[in-house]
Amino acid sequence: MLTTTESKTTRRVSAAALHAFLMDAMRACDLSEADAAIVAGAMLEADLTGSDAHGIFRLPGYVKALKRGAMNPRANIRELERGPATALIDGDHGMGHVVMTYAANLAVELARGAGVGWVGARRSNHAGAGATYAAIPLRRAMVGIYGAASSVNHMAPWGGSEPLLGTNPMAVAIPAGNEPPVILDIATSLASNGAIRTYELDGKPMPEGWVQHRQDGSSITDPRRINEGTYLPMGGYKGSGLSLVIGLLAGPLNRAAFGRDIRDFAAPAGGDGNVGQFVIALDVARFAPLDMFKAEVDRHIRELVSSRRLPGGDDIRVPGMGRAARRAERERDGVPLNAAVLAQVDELAKSLAITPLGARA
Amino acid sequence: MLTTTESKTTRRVSAAALHAFLMDAMRACDLSEADAAIVAGAMLEADLTGSDAHGIFRLPGYVKALKRGAMNPRANIRELERGPATALIDGDHGMGHVVMTYAANLAVELARGAGVGWVGARRSNHAGAGATYAAIPLRRAMVGIYGAASSVNHMAPWGGSEPLLGTNPMAVAIPAGNEPPVILDIATSLASNGAIRTYELDGKPMPEGWVQHRQDGSSITDPRRINEGTYLPMGGYKGSGLSLVIGLLAGPLNRAAFGRDIRDFAAPAGGDGNVGQFVIALDVARFAPLDMFKAEVDRHIRELVSSRRLPGGDDIRVPGMGRAARRAERERDGVPLNAAVLAQVDELAKSLAITPLGARA
Repeated sequence: MLTTTESKTTRRVSAAALHAFLMDAMRACDLSEADAAIVAGAMLEADLTGSDAHGIFRLPGYVKALKRGAMNPRANIRELERGPATALIDGDHGMGHVVMTYAANLAVELARGAGVGWVGARRSNHAGAGATYAAIPLRRAMVGIYGAASSVNHMAPWGGSEPLLGTNPMAVAIPAGNEPPVILDIATSLASNGAIRTYELDGKPMPEGWVQHRQDGSSITDPRRINEGTYLPMGGYKGSGLSLVIGLLAGPLNRAAFGRDIRDFAAPAGGDGNVGQFVIALDVARFAPLDMFKAEVDRHIRELVSSRRLPGGDDIRVPGMGRAARRAERERDGVPLNAAVLAQVDELAKSLAITPLGARA
Repeated sequence: MLTTTESKTTRRVSAAALHAFLMDAMRACDLSEADAAIVAGAMLEADLTGSDAHGIFRLPGYVKALKRGAMNPRANIRELERGPATALIDGDHGMGHVVMTYAANLAVELARGAGVGWVGARRSNHAGAGATYAAIPLRRAMVGIYGAASSVNHMAPWGGSEPLLGTNPMAVAIPAGNEPPVILDIATSLASNGAIRTYELDGKPMPEGWVQHRQDGSSITDPRRINEGTYLPMGGYKGSGLSLVIGLLAGPLNRAAFGRDIRDFAAPAGGDGNVGQFVIALDVARFAPLDMFKAEVDRHIRELVSSRRLPGGDDIRVPGMGRAARRAERERDGVPLNAAVLAQVDELAKSLAITPLGARA
């Protein structure tokens, strides 16, 4: 059922209402007040900055996982290994948002002492947008880097037809001065899982070349048929290679899952996952005076965005500018939510016995 | 002048002869014995493993730069900053191979103490294949990561038409057990500068979509006309964003050049470059027992390469397997060199008063 317009099917919800609803949902799933605030904050941030597929869109899936015990609402995060600049933490199957916020804060702490901190996590879960955790070191004028071995495999290795690789994303955040920080957040697939699910939700055909059929490699454009295919990597073999190295560093290095140990996205959900992620914090001041560095980043951003455009092309944007613009707009005008998502979460609200989102605003 | 066959124009040269020739050339350019060995070793490694565009192909350019003082044959590398896990070094305009070998060894030293070491370099130069430096930590059972802000700009920011970004490469090396280590070495452009220069040398038209015209964005396939265009990034805006963040971390963070400070590749060479690069070493043993990790990497490599292929597709390869196979083949049968390259370096041999390569085995 392909619809032609999207505008009729979206509604704006204020950031405050969205946050309060997410808090209530997490409380209802037995998260502590502090952990509920972390998850609600990360999900709201995703919705505000335009990572819509990592915002409230995910709530029904998370609640289901929390209720059936696949995610632990009362996770006891432990440090398994700790060195002067490295650590490995056990997420105790907690929500990825909680585990990776812990990891990022620990990386910052290590970097304050050593200049750089690399923290790996095992037995974690889906953490939403990687940018959220890469951005945590920004508060201490540090660079942040995030990588994850996805909890589900959507890509085949280059030349293959079995989904043995995740869309394993990476995010990098670099402090700026007066300009918004540079924040890159990319899946190693050509199209992110979130983008594809948004097409599915909107009932629109996907562009050619995003998903290829497992049998013959032909393009699949109907989002209802993605289970018959695998997602194509960005830049061909390069994206496949990037997914593989990010996956090994986030997975097996942290004694977490990768490859055949991770289920195919077309297979039924279930089982005890062991999601691995890592986050790095790097202290700018160990390399250059902070003010000088920020001024240089500002200058480079301005020189790039004001450079000559291709005729008929869009504005030149530096990663992070779009996020900043969307946050400003959505904080003012509210977050546009798809009617199908709204209906879904308000069904959920009933089952959780919390005030529906539609009744807030 | 487009030729149709390449086979007639290549000749095999033994690794020993190539190494001896490179050593003599570096000695003739006044490098110390130790530094000549580093450069000759890195260039030979590139030719053996298939990074042909970073091997002897580059010698004429390097010799020219050394002779006119743009590269310093007697560089005095200094540590400007040093913390428990980070360092910034000044390459004194030495050859990039020498500077980045120093950087990688220092990163390993830091990682032995702290678990991870991140070393930035400024006032460096073109260092050849990034894999060479990412692979140095492998000797100590560490992961290696390399990134560089290219010394010349070939790419435009996404949507732009001015070359303000380099093809800024990254390399990642991960230890394996019985399998070859996983080594990914990619430019953030769809095609590397080296690949494009190989087409130029062979006089063959390039694939569509590698280079776009600065005026209208149309595809340029004649490698003699690349100066009228810019290289396209891998994966569109994603590769442009990757180039940008690698460039900022390798350039301005190390007080090295980026963006408008780097010359357009179509502009005449000259000036005092300030090339920035970084290398990270990460100690596997801080996260997982080394034997367990190596066995896991081996298992995952085997499961990926033996997975179901697309019909009619090539073998599934994990990054690093092709390099290992080429090294074995070329160590045995010699390195295939293009006749034009051979003629060029033997002209050079005359001017350096060293035995020509053609006269050595």
